[in-house]
Amino acid sequence: MAKTIKKIGVMTSGGDSPGMNAAIRSVVRACAYHNIECFGIYRGYEGMIEGDFVKMDARSVKGIINKGGTILKSARSKEFRTKEGREKAHQQLVKAGIEAFVVIGGDGSFTGAMIFNQEFNFPVMGIPGTIDNDIFGTTHTLGYDTALNTVVEVIDKIRDTASSHNRLFFVEVMGRDVGHIALNVGIGAGAEEILIPEEDLGLERLLESLRRSKKSGKSSSIVVVAEGDKIGKNVFELKDYVEENMTEYEVRVSVLGHMQRGGAPSCFDRVLASRMGVKAVESLIDGHSNFMVGLKNDVIDVTPFDQAVKGKSKINTELLRVSDIMSI
Amino acid sequence: MAKTIKKIGVMTSGGDSPGMNAAIRSVVRACAYHNIECFGIYRGYEGMIEGDFVKMDARSVKGIINKGGTILKSARSKEFRTKEGREKAHQQLVKAGIEAFVVIGGDGSFTGAMIFNQEFNFPVMGIPGTIDNDIFGTTHTLGYDTALNTVVEVIDKIRDTASSHNRLFFVEVMGRDVGHIALNVGIGAGAEEILIPEEDLGLERLLESLRRSKKSGKSSSIVVVAEGDKIGKNVFELKDYVEENMTEYEVRVSVLGHMQRGGAPSCFDRVLASRMGVKAVESLIDGHSNFMVGLKNDVIDVTPFDQAVKGKSKINTELLRVSDIMSI
Amino acid sequence: MAKTIKKIGVMTSGGDSPGMNAAIRSVVRACAYHNIECFGIYRGYEGMIEGDFVKMDARSVKGIINKGGTILKSARSKEFRTKEGREKAHQQLVKAGIEAFVVIGGDGSFTGAMIFNQEFNFPVMGIPGTIDNDIFGTTHTLGYDTALNTVVEVIDKIRDTASSHNRLFFVEVMGRDVGHIALNVGIGAGAEEILIPEEDLGLERLLESLRRSKKSGKSSSIVVVAEGDKIGKNVFELKDYVEENMTEYEVRVSVLGHMQRGGAPSCFDRVLASRMGVKAVESLIDGHSNFMVGLKNDVIDVTPFDQAVKGKSKINTELLRVSDIMSI
Amino acid sequence: MAKTIKKIGVMTSGGDSPGMNAAIRSVVRACAYHNIECFGIYRGYEGMIEGDFVKMDARSVKGIINKGGTILKSARSKEFRTKEGREKAHQQLVKAGIEAFVVIGGDGSFTGAMIFNQEFNFPVMGIPGTIDNDIFGTTHTLGYDTALNTVVEVIDKIRDTASSHNRLFFVEVMGRDVGHIALNVGIGAGAEEILIPEEDLGLERLLESLRRSKKSGKSSSIVVVAEGDKIGKNVFELKDYVEENMTEYEVRVSVLGHMQRGGAPSCFDRVLASRMGVKAVESLIDGHSNFMVGLKNDVIDVTPFDQAVKGKSKINTELLRVSDIMSI
Repeated sequence: MAKTIKKIGVMTSGGDSPGMNAAIRSVVRACAYHNIECFGIYRGYEGMIEGDFVKMDARSVKGIINKGGTILKSARSKEFRTKEGREKAHQQLVKAGIEAFVVIGGDGSFTGAMIFNQEFNFPVMGIPGTIDNDIFGTTHTLGYDTALNTVVEVIDKIRDTASSHNRLFFVEVMGRDVGHIALNVGIGAGAEEILIPEEDLGLERLLESLRRSKKSGKSSSIVVVAEGDKIGKNVFELKDYVEENMTEYEVRVSVLGHMQRGGAPSCFDRVLASRMGVKAVESLIDGHSNFMVGLKNDVIDVTPFDQAVKGKSKINTELLRVSDIMSI
Repeated sequence: MAKTIKKIGVMTSGGDSPGMNAAIRSVVRACAYHNIECFGIYRGYEGMIEGDFVKMDARSVKGIINKGGTILKSARSKEFRTKEGREKAHQQLVKAGIEAFVVIGGDGSFTGAMIFNQEFNFPVMGIPGTIDNDIFGTTHTLGYDTALNTVVEVIDKIRDTASSHNRLFFVEVMGRDVGHIALNVGIGAGAEEILIPEEDLGLERLLESLRRSKKSGKSSSIVVVAEGDKIGKNVFELKDYVEENMTEYEVRVSVLGHMQRGGAPSCFDRVLASRMGVKAVESLIDGHSNFMVGLKNDVIDVTPFDQAVKGKSKINTELLRVSDIMSI
Repeated sequence: MAKTIKKIGVMTSGGDSPGMNAAIRSVVRACAYHNIECFGIYRGYEGMIEGDFVKMDARSVKGIINKGGTILKSARSKEFRTKEGREKAHQQLVKAGIEAFVVIGGDGSFTGAMIFNQEFNFPVMGIPGTIDNDIFGTTHTLGYDTALNTVVEVIDKIRDTASSHNRLFFVEVMGRDVGHIALNVGIGAGAEEILIPEEDLGLERLLESLRRSKKSGKSSSIVVVAEGDKIGKNVFELKDYVEENMTEYEVRVSVLGHMQRGGAPSCFDRVLASRMGVKAVESLIDGHSNFMVGLKNDVIDVTPFDQAVKGKSKINTELLRVSDIMSI
Repeated sequence: MAKTIKKIGVMTSGGDSPGMNAAIRSVVRACAYHNIECFGIYRGYEGMIEGDFVKMDARSVKGIINKGGTILKSARSKEFRTKEGREKAHQQLVKAGIEAFVVIGGDGSFTGAMIFNQEFNFPVMGIPGTIDNDIFGTTHTLGYDTALNTVVEVIDKIRDTASSHNRLFFVEVMGRDVGHIALNVGIGAGAEEILIPEEDLGLERLLESLRRSKKSGKSSSIVVVAEGDKIGKNVFELKDYVEENMTEYEVRVSVLGHMQRGGAPSCFDRVLASRMGVKAVESLIDGHSNFMVGLKNDVIDVTPFDQAVKGKSKINTELLRVSDIMSI
């Protein structure tokens, strides 16, 4: 039987995403519900090393479920990548009596937690928080659904001006390794073409597609480009290339950038965060460790960290076909 | 082998929901992609009986993916419930050369389509469009995700004023037969209590819960009530009851009403609508009929109309537990 | 010359409105800028009587400029209406060394401040915070612009469903004594008719107008009704009356209620709040008292409390004419 | 007495802005109200030269009051800058029987209209539509208020991620010649520094201000930069400069771009557009010409084109001071 846990830490690590606060709230309240003391760890592993902890009760997290960002702040920690750093962190946890922690973050944060667990046999659980949805073991990461809505609303606005002027817009969205955001917002915003890291369309086929689109009577076009697109050129070079080869279009570029990470979480992300926080805490109570909580077929489940970290999140190829049909 | 279909009709029927326009667009463009003529049928079965059809091509549906409501309008038709009405409708379709149709709507619309199919052996497919998410055979109906966000944003606003004044608010949301909306927005908006048709909490336990909430240091409270709540009192009677029994609270009521059905669809609903429209058209091309398109485990699939109509959509009981823990 | 003020209090009183937090922030920072200590007074006059004060510096108000509601909470105080209550309040201020205060609120709050000033010769300044825009001496009260946008967005959503179904909607908006909100959102949302307290259209003319609207080819209609409309019937009675007399319409009612008071303030309200807070503090520094800060011809100015309280805020009759022309 | 006008044209020209559709709607309905035929002219002067006109009645403009962009499209026309181009345009108007037109646009569009009026004694009126608010003779151009809200909401999102990571963000907003947008959103979003074309802060003072901000306990900072800022460096060079000189900050850049021009207009812009359209049409009916409609002290008024074009729109220097105080 699992030893009874009395104190749990919670922190956010890596890039922030909408829903992180809702997840913190859920971990804190699940602890309160189970009569476990909960400590917030500030600035991820950085704050763990420094012992930057604060005791949190159910009321500490009121009014944050709908706030973007993270009240615990986040950081990347170089020191935690060293054995010495992790030892310091461990000592701080021990000193504070914290017996397990939940880390809300991405790949890198989970790798850190996994190593920490191996070195100190310290119970850890992960909650996937990143807008990129690039983590294996969950169909949805926290913040992904919100980011899709944020981006689609922005492209709706760009569409207003694009169609008033018969323009072509390249809109760069986040997604360094996977094209989830680009693919979904591309369909959702009615993009004529979607460029993602998983596929190399080729410049020639892009031009062809734009020409076909023009011929079919479209007066304006939006091309959604994932940051990590492999077409061999960045979005500004793409613009230049198209302008040289298609003089009929005025081309504009919009790089959406960090706004994609902010904003009030969608209802979906708030509910998901609430479910995940409960599962993470109750898994620790049940004596489990080294898992990431995830959503699979609408059910909350767990995946071992090593699988979550090594596995690859794949785009839904059905969407590529739907996108082709929609942009006829 | 299926006979080749040359003309497909598309219509919206019953209550409207965000994403209906995106689904119309998808049906029209999937037809265009497969070189099938597409006709819009205005005002559901009413317009079918009157032969109120309009030819639509890929350009007819531009600029509508992000629009709430339905450009084809919707209506309930008494006449279609009669044999004579359906015969008129059939004659109109035959006259126009329409060989199959896609109906976007809810339970009642599918029942009509199913009967029509039986009587005239006419190919039909359904796309579930309703914010209530009360249809068996799909985890998500069109418009449901959007409605969740709409409601959560409104309750966020009510929360502002509730917590400025230490007030208790009863917020009535849609959901006559199932509590999906209430349950999810209740968690998403951090409600202290959620009243749904599936559960009869009882007035005593509601008071108890509110008293506990007050004692735990909460200065304001939101109770989300589904329209169809079975607690035996409507939301205004609830207010009176609580005011009589808990003088420490000023109680207010907000009935959200029809605004919940409107607004630009979320990215999720736009993508879902696009996928469903393609599936509906390609199912007809493949010779299938009498099915509703749905989402199951994130995959687009079909369910026979009779199952969709008879089956019951169930709430996720895990969420009840999460809600209890979150409102500690 | 004015005696140097060293400590200023700030509070919110009466109904809350978006922008109150931005005004609190401005008062606090203007104090910091001028090296004056600033104290937040919780729950308006109620907290003043109880001595519920908290010292605030520039950092105390970070992250609140875009938050609805009021971090200082608000309340109505019966006790402050008594001489004894006000004496207690005065003693509390004196005890804390607070030498002047800024009250953010409406008519009633200013009347209280004015009496307090007369009784104790205590320096006070007011900032008009209410969504109703019903205060003389300023073209815009804090929260009014935000509320207009909130309401217009909700009616846009109702319009989606109204026009999908050829329905008539009565939408009740705030405004007990003046029709500013109704008049502006009525024009902004393209309402067919606007019912305000300042005008008694009469039931017959309403029916006439709706019939004309129907005849002109409109398939759906929105009628915006101010809470305080004097047509002699409440909005549900209006519905019944119209349904009895115009069977061609399905009529629906939507009472927007308290959501109108919440939400992140618009840019206009944030800037206005910032300007008003500075003016209020600097007026006190300059030895002025008993004034309300206001916006006149886009310039920040002040109005004596007694004028602000007695004067009447008038609707712009040009808008009535514009509304008539727009709903042709 | 003025000769009775029977046909009026309306068009949008130059960059689009939210509220243009609401203004088109107003012009069309004001014409209908006064029994004047109204023609939409597509793509500004370009479409005028080509005779690309369409007759519009009150129903032609339904459902557009809340749509961004312009249903009449916009373009810049080189040909109209030539005498020959304008002669062609005049012939097209005469051929269609159009006797006056209303142009919704900016400086350049008004200059064109003024020259056209001089050459052909053709009645023209202008409505200022641009988000930059850079036109003399009106305190508000159409779209300006909407853009402020759009930008402030985006910076709120950037703030979420900035404060989660202790970052410094440079956010570039529109405003080539005037800093209205930067100044207002800077205050509204709580920016630490605002860089506008009207003021050259100097790099040294920027660093100083950021250092002071850091020292005062702020963990993250937003600097709003107008496109046309004269500090001598573009926003990316600014970033490099600050990173070299302030290693304590991670600096990020966000260029908001064209999204600022899109979106549903705010209530203010919808009402303003409605008022301006009526005034423009009724001015033509009254025999006036060569004026721009504008808002002055909350009243609709007119300004001769030559003054509107030559005059300079000035920022409110009070706001500079308020910004300084707020960023303490």
